[in-house]
Amino acid sequence: MRIDILTVLPEMIEGFFNCSIMARAQKKGLAEIVIHNIRDYTTDKHHKTDDYPFGGSAGMVMKIEPIDRLITKLKSERDYDDVIFTSPDGERFDQRMANSLSLCNNLIILCGHFKGIDYRVREHLITREVSIGDYVLTGGELAAAAIADATVRLIPGVLGDVGSALDDSFQDGLLDHPVYTRPADYKGWCVPEILLSGNEALIREWELNQQIARTRRLRPDLLKD
Amino acid sequence: MRIDILTVLPEMIEGFFNCSIMARAQKKGLAEIVIHNIRDYTTDKHHKTDDYPFGGSAGMVMKIEPIDRLITKLKSERDYDDVIFTSPDGERFDQRMANSLSLCNNLIILCGHFKGIDYRVREHLITREVSIGDYVLTGGELAAAAIADATVRLIPGVLGDVGSALDDSFQDGLLDHPVYTRPADYKGWCVPEILLSGNEALIREWELNQQIARTRRLRPDLLKD
Repeated sequence: MRIDILTVLPEMIEGFFNCSIMARAQKKGLAEIVIHNIRDYTTDKHHKTDDYPFGGSAGMVMKIEPIDRLITKLKSERDYDDVIFTSPDGERFDQRMANSLSLCNNLIILCGHFKGIDYRVREHLITREVSIGDYVLTGGELAAAAIADATVRLIPGVLGDVGSALDDSFQDGLLDHPVYTRPADYKGWCVPEILLSGNEALIREWELNQQIARTRRLRPDLLKD
Repeated sequence: MRIDILTVLPEMIEGFFNCSIMARAQKKGLAEIVIHNIRDYTTDKHHKTDDYPFGGSAGMVMKIEPIDRLITKLKSERDYDDVIFTSPDGERFDQRMANSLSLCNNLIILCGHFKGIDYRVREHLITREVSIGDYVLTGGELAAAAIADATVRLIPGVLGDVGSALDDSFQDGLLDHPVYTRPADYKGWCVPEILLSGNEALIREWELNQQIARTRRLRPDLLKD
């Protein structure tokens, strides 16, 4: 799968994709993350990507021309499943959406910045607005990174241990159970005895019961389907 | 305000905090973001921060000792308002929480990684679990960055234009109105005439009506209070 991320501040997230599982996914050829600087698609002398808003509200607005040029170029090179704009107004990103995006071949994620983006971009150039939550970030870069990260890690082969992703919170509609590692006793705080018992069947049962109990206590809404 | 971020992969987010508004907030002395490598607080030869889980589930689990050592050291140096662990199980992060965190003096944000973290950390060392949304990330680093970003940008003086933050989506319980910038006509896609009228009162009224209409259409839940 290929994800093109369009931003005016590539340096915000470049480091992120050179690390850990995202780096490994790319090295294995399972994912290709291409970060584009929108500024490279300006044609004016000052490489302006933003300008004052019409009507006199506060803040700067991202211009449509360089974004249109960049998206048009990308679309001429390959077919995209979706052109996503990250915005707190958008459809809520969740594990179900991550699962479905992980089946795509090519995605564009456009990051908003400054006060906002010329609304004509949202009306004409994108196919989907996605929000990672009800909070306002400096820019859409972290949102794009979160969407790419949650999606790419679900591609078969990306995580070393296949069990890891299937086991995660939300994949089975339940929160995860507690996990513990050595030492069994740390300052008097002890690991539950059952986990040291070696009785696999009882351990799996304990884990499932913990999942149900924690979900009921912390996120009863997940059980309401 | 000071935010200490505790992670096994500092390079995932270091670039982010050296950019844009986060860099400016730190240069102005309005925020101090200190990223700590948990690995520096291991005492074994191999600097192990993770180990196999008790009970034989898949994946690796973050060990309690180096985390305890690091948090204990930080707490001996200053008082912390909260020690936050980022987890999809946690209390949902939103703009209201960002507003309240922006009033804190000192925060610790601990990033989970691998399959999870020894549950005793969550029981004994942290004060609050926070989730940025119902999706699973490679690690808590992006979540920590999102929490820090949404919070720090609300500190007075951080955004160049004071109007910007107050104007944002969610701050008044409404989504933002559309914004436009030059050119007024791009490939036949035109800016709404009212915004070119120069009539400030009518423009403000149009903007508010757009906010209400967009919120009603896209997020009717926000109007239910």
